[in-house]
Order: sequence, then C-alpha cells, then structure tokens
Amino acid sequence: MSELSNQACEACRADAPRVEEPQRSELMKSIPQWQLSEMETIPQLQRVFTFKNFRQALAFTNQVGEMAEQQGHHPALTTEWGKVTVSWWTHKIRGLHQNDFICAAKTDEIAGS
Amino acid sequence: MSELSNQACEACRADAPRVEEPQRSELMKSIPQWQLSEMETIPQLQRVFTFKNFRQALAFTNQVGEMAEQQGHHPALTTEWGKVTVSWWTHKIRGLHQNDFICAAKTDEIAGS
Repeated sequence: MSELSNQACEACRADAPRVEEPQRSELMKSIPQWQLSEMETIPQLQRVFTFKNFRQALAFTNQVGEMAEQQGHHPALTTEWGKVTVSWWTHKIRGLHQNDFICAAKTDEIAGS
Repeated sequence: MSELSNQACEACRADAPRVEEPQRSELMKSIPQWQLSEMETIPQLQRVFTFKNFRQALAFTNQVGEMAEQQGHHPALTTEWGKVTVSWWTHKIRGLHQNDFICAAKTDEIAGS
C-alpha cells in the first residue's frame, strides 16, 4: 500500500500549486501503472483497467465514483465492455494537483481489493 | 417516442451490413440530438447529457448500462462531474449497425424519463 493512498484530498483553489517536476516524477513512482497523458494541453493521469465483461467494468466505475464523492474530487471514467479508462486532473488549475496522485493511488487500491 | 426506441437489438455478426447513406441520414432524423463523430476512422453516434452533479451523472451511466446489458450491445460511457458522453458503434463491423441507432433512441428515452 502506498502512502499516497492513505492521504485525503484537500480543498483545491484556482491558485493552488500545480505539481511540477521534479515532484511529479517522484509522485509517479508511487503509481507506476499510470501514464501521463495530455488532453487539450492539460496533463492528466490515466490508467486503463480491464475486466471480464461490461457488468464488472460498470461495478468498478461505481466503486471509483463512490470514492470520488467521498473525496470531493472527480475523474473522467470511460466505461466500455471489459474496460474502464480512469483520468484524473484538476479543472480549477488546469493541471495536476497532489489530489490527483492521491486519488490515482486510491483507484489502484480499489482495483486491488 | 420514436419507433426506433421500440425495437430490440439483433445479434450482430462480422458480415452484418453497415448502415450507410442514404439510410444513415434517414435514421439520424429519429435521433436529432446525436452527432456523427469519428474515432480512429470508425464512425460513432455521440451525445453529451448534462446533469447537476456527479452523482446524477453516474446514476444515468448505470441506467444506460442496464439497458445495454438487456440489449447485449454496449456503448462507451464517459462519466464526469455533471455530464455523461455516450458513444454507440459496433465493434464487429467497425462501423454503425442499425442496433446503434436503436440504442441511441433508447438512451434518449432514459434521459427523458
């Protein structure tokens, strides 16, 4: 279990600091299965989780959604037959906040449970 | 209520006919709020549904997912805070089948209910 997953999201403001290098690379070590991708110039943390069918994928989406509600921080969850693509980023700062790394680690824990 | 939404999906094979023009334009009239988009050269029917928060968006995703299971035909459902993007296409034929138009109409019905 990574330490990140034990942390809670903090309230995020538009002037909150973005996670930049070298901190970003350091945090990525805690979530090695996540990719840094970019959507319309905004960096995102993204991982594809695979499942046996649509129902299992949708159940995972609901579990991650429940965690997101608890944390007050919400991802994009693309549910398809046999897979869910999870993307974390922070709208308010158009970038990555420490909250995104925390929630990525919590997503990994859900997948592993 | 469109007639399309009263139809059921049929089993689809790799050699099933794609919906091409002019039939495609005719079917689009029954689902005027859907866009034809293209993902890696594969045409898709896509519509964004908006909601007041994340929980309502996730509830809609579950309703559409339940219908998809009943029909044995599955979309991509991207759930975010306040919106769900629904995409229908048919993997086996790498294009649009009549099933996709039927399921788009059924999705509209769920949103309207």
